[in-house]
Amino acid sequence: MEYFPAPLERLVEQFARLPGIGGKSAQRLAFYVLGLTDQEAQEFADAIVEAKRTVTRCPVCQNLTGGGPCSICASPRRDPAVICVVADPRDVAAMERAREYTGLYHVLHGVISPMNHIGPDDLEIKSLVDRVAQGEVQEVIMATNPDTEGEATAMYLARLLKPFSVRVTRLAYGIPVGGHLEFADDATLMRALEGRREL
Amino acid sequence: MEYFPAPLERLVEQFARLPGIGGKSAQRLAFYVLGLTDQEAQEFADAIVEAKRTVTRCPVCQNLTGGGPCSICASPRRDPAVICVVADPRDVAAMERAREYTGLYHVLHGVISPMNHIGPDDLEIKSLVDRVAQGEVQEVIMATNPDTEGEATAMYLARLLKPFSVRVTRLAYGIPVGGHLEFADDATLMRALEGRREL
Repeated sequence: MEYFPAPLERLVEQFARLPGIGGKSAQRLAFYVLGLTDQEAQEFADAIVEAKRTVTRCPVCQNLTGGGPCSICASPRRDPAVICVVADPRDVAAMERAREYTGLYHVLHGVISPMNHIGPDDLEIKSLVDRVAQGEVQEVIMATNPDTEGEATAMYLARLLKPFSVRVTRLAYGIPVGGHLEFADDATLMRALEGRREL
Repeated sequence: MEYFPAPLERLVEQFARLPGIGGKSAQRLAFYVLGLTDQEAQEFADAIVEAKRTVTRCPVCQNLTGGGPCSICASPRRDPAVICVVADPRDVAAMERAREYTGLYHVLHGVISPMNHIGPDDLEIKSLVDRVAQGEVQEVIMATNPDTEGEATAMYLARLLKPFSVRVTRLAYGIPVGGHLEFADDATLMRALEGRREL
């Protein structure tokens, strides 16, 4: 069933493989590419190959980097005594946007998930333990997502880091800023109550 | 605010330019590319450049082609006496999927739209008139969308083709097959009533 020229069909197929892109969307994106200038299409193609070729993991924190240690690990202004553990590089970006945290990170690249056959060995856990074992770290902040798998991973790591004289903490739970009490779920409200503080 | 390595940021930007892709989606797509193999990324990039480079318009019907006349215009099994006029190459694909039509096509590449500053000269209208003027065509079927602009474009073309001894027709309006009367809008119901036929 070839209704479009073969090179266009191939491009539609490529777009259709992307997550969250269905057949109709893939078609729309492919037609958009046909409307680009030659140079724009080339830049798009180059960006794909270039990102894939040059983006690697930071040898220290496993965050994404354009080569060598990432900009956060390389910065002299970051506190090397604190490590914030996150599941994904996008979580680093979210934390950085908050402009509050001045320590370093460690990116697990996933969470422990027996359902998806992801065990501790599939994640960047050994590299975290190695960092903590070097003795410079004083606090490890668990910032995995507050869902079952994120919780379980944080608990697992906390136990794993117990032998080292290091403080292991967890991001606070509670009502999101700007949120409404009436829309908060029970579990969040319970956690918010548990974590209440003196005014 | 660079939270990701520069090559990754550039790829996110490229994806974010695509129609219907917001910032979060662009990030997700860029991360998906990082997860591809080198070869898969290269194939994706090649598909973009290749589609842009090789896909042109058929010199006869202006549909998209990989070079030369399109497969429909080149087929000896298609009836050259009938031309179906559509706004977009995707409409050709939709008509072909129905496997009912055996004539040729003419792709306008848009509809007349004063609001968007698209006039007759911006569309493939002269090439249509030239085809009809050659005398072989006996019927021109208007298959623009049944909206205001599609209607206006069809009416404009019908008037333009009047001097030639050619039948100009329009796709039938009515209740979509498998549709429900209760969900049909008033305009469609009115048209369905107008176009009622003997059983």
